Amino acid sequence: MKLVVLKFGGTSVGTIEKIKKVTDIIIGYKKRKNKVIVVSSAMSGVTNNLIKKSKQISENFLDSEYDVLVSSGEQVACSLIAGRLNHKGFNSRSWLGWQVPILTSGPHTNSRIKIVNKDKLLRFLRQGGIPIITGFQGVNIDERVTTIGRGGSDSSAIMIAKFFRAQRCIIYTDVEGVYTTDPSKLKKAKKIKVISYEEMLEMASLGAKVMQPVSIQDARLNRIDIEVKSTFKKKPGTLITKRKNINKNRIITGISSTQNDAKVTLVGVKDRPGVAASIFKPLSTNSINVDMVVQNISENGKETDLTFTIKAEDLNKTKKIIQENRRINFRKVLFKKGVSKISIIGVGMITTPGVSFRMFQALANKKINIQVISTSEIKISVLINKKDIKKALVTLHKEFKLQK
Amino acid sequence: MKLVVLKFGGTSVGTIEKIKKVTDIIIGYKKRKNKVIVVSSAMSGVTNNLIKKSKQISENFLDSEYDVLVSSGEQVACSLIAGRLNHKGFNSRSWLGWQVPILTSGPHTNSRIKIVNKDKLLRFLRQGGIPIITGFQGVNIDERVTTIGRGGSDSSAIMIAKFFRAQRCIIYTDVEGVYTTDPSKLKKAKKIKVISYEEMLEMASLGAKVMQPVSIQDARLNRIDIEVKSTFKKKPGTLITKRKNINKNRIITGISSTQNDAKVTLVGVKDRPGVAASIFKPLSTNSINVDMVVQNISENGKETDLTFTIKAEDLNKTKKIIQENRRINFRKVLFKKGVSKISIIGVGMITTPGVSFRMFQALANKKINIQVISTSEIKISVLINKKDIKKALVTLHKEFKLQK
Repeated sequence: MKLVVLKFGGTSVGTIEKIKKVTDIIIGYKKRKNKVIVVSSAMSGVTNNLIKKSKQISENFLDSEYDVLVSSGEQVACSLIAGRLNHKGFNSRSWLGWQVPILTSGPHTNSRIKIVNKDKLLRFLRQGGIPIITGFQGVNIDERVTTIGRGGSDSSAIMIAKFFRAQRCIIYTDVEGVYTTDPSKLKKAKKIKVISYEEMLEMASLGAKVMQPVSIQDARLNRIDIEVKSTFKKKPGTLITKRKNINKNRIITGISSTQNDAKVTLVGVKDRPGVAASIFKPLSTNSINVDMVVQNISENGKETDLTFTIKAEDLNKTKKIIQENRRINFRKVLFKKGVSKISIIGVGMITTPGVSFRMFQALANKKINIQVISTSEIKISVLINKKDIKKALVTLHKEFKLQK
Repeated sequence: MKLVVLKFGGTSVGTIEKIKKVTDIIIGYKKRKNKVIVVSSAMSGVTNNLIKKSKQISENFLDSEYDVLVSSGEQVACSLIAGRLNHKGFNSRSWLGWQVPILTSGPHTNSRIKIVNKDKLLRFLRQGGIPIITGFQGVNIDERVTTIGRGGSDSSAIMIAKFFRAQRCIIYTDVEGVYTTDPSKLKKAKKIKVISYEEMLEMASLGAKVMQPVSIQDARLNRIDIEVKSTFKKKPGTLITKRKNINKNRIITGISSTQNDAKVTLVGVKDRPGVAASIFKPLSTNSINVDMVVQNISENGKETDLTFTIKAEDLNKTKKIIQENRRINFRKVLFKKGVSKISIIGVGMITTPGVSFRMFQALANKKINIQVISTSEIKISVLINKKDIKKALVTLHKEFKLQK
């Protein structure tokens, strides 16, 4: 008998009608002779509403009480799912983090799951029960309620799948899977059938909001196969798996892009140890997210040019911070708005030479100027003018045959 | 150092602003060198909203999941209170039923508190902490979340006061205390300073909605003095205490009345064992609440007349049930709408002869006809025409000098 872990996100259980729909999916798996463990998020909107309340109480709401507060959301969703399954004649019950228990360590609001205790759940599964486990939460050694950070229900499901050695972990959500690029930006975007953890990590951190990077990392470290699929449409989703399961002939898996960035270039920076840190520390302190960073080798070993990108909306704040920063010496600073980043991602590029050339050539053929280049093992990113982004997406999607 | 238990009802913590107000009250007690334990209900409206959801899921929502569902409400309120106290610089934390633990027995949705474990709370109190305990809920021997019935946060506070031998248990609510009669019906109604458990029980079951009878009974059995007072007005409330603490000269403590009842009289009922049961069982099964019941002695030992009252809105349903009831024999049945019950309550009547005479005479002087009389040790109730109820209230309130 197979054991499957099904995880439902907030939008999947956002209304009573959707909860009824979700229980039908669960019953489907149960009827196919599976052992089923369900993990649920809070109904959509609930967690944000609770966070809003906490901010009205105090801008520095105590972390340990924040965890008690927001964990109530999953409690509600899980009891409703379990109640519905019982209504339909199935033996089901909710399991709160402390009841399993799911033991966590680390600070409140950002704990990590250490152990999922199996004893009680296994007994319940053997009786044919369907446990509905609260995602996102656990309990620490002091018997305090903890949470594992936002979007953490995915991680809960993955860790439960790991401890139970589940055959499958299926993440039900409001999208149909992972696409070759954002379908709202390019109609020809295609659902990806199989993607590796590493590619998914690059896609996720670049804007594919299907799963939090931390959850994908959890899956990667524990070698758990994840299927992402739609709660509302009965279609195959995307399998996130080990790199070796990926089709060897595929060079590029997906393309991601940013909407509206700004570029900052410091010309003639005194090249000495710690200079980069003294530039970026005040930005980080002010919650400005620095994306691409490129530093050219200095000609004379004394000066260098440093370029980095930020979100366009952070430009004014960044200008102020850079200009008031007395700890760095530079000759000139250039600010440029209206740039976007486009990245091609694929494990296939490791074994395929000339991928970057193909990318640059395809863009050049369309007269798209490349301002900055940055690469990793499975990703090539370039900075271009914002106005060219749509053309670049179309061009690269076609060049690497992603619509097929 | 005194230990006080403060309980806040749903309307007292109904908004963020009210929660801030409540924390000011708590801080007031703490600053007066008290050890303070707080018990809170859910924010008003929250529990009803959750119950509504459960009914949308299933008309027969599983009791054990109902408890998980609704107990989330107190969790939210308590974390917000604790968060606010920390914001104000006080050491406070929420304690969920299972964390204390508050051990209960009995069925889900209607459990009873058996033990309030003191160890962890005492340690926290010794560190100067202010525990905020979720009312209404506990945990059973199987580590399942339980609730103790609606309005049960009062009982939680009383049981906590008992186990901690608290000097005082103060129920903060949206009324200023218990009144000689309903102030919305009689402007001259006065707040009662001290009332016995027994009087309060008669007042409560007759419609004074300050505390649930079951909570008053808990206080009575455990000899806990309760003060009921307003969260929003800084005024003395009502002390509910042992009978011996009541002023011996006071004959009547309060007057309660019903709005709109109906009277049913079965004439010529065959007088044999079990006949009353066979009349009232089908009414009870149909959730019709029978109030006064008066049976006359039968003249010949074979037949009797039986009169009882019900709420006016239940009359049609009652007619149908009585007329279709084949298990009882009677000659005639009379139904009468438009009646009300008025009751005078006071432990003083036990030692004062002639109280009932004074009541009947006062009503007779105002030409108010008495249709049915029923008495208990500390209460005399009469049934009169609904149109006379205001006049009767004024008359009896004056007769027994309750406005002074």
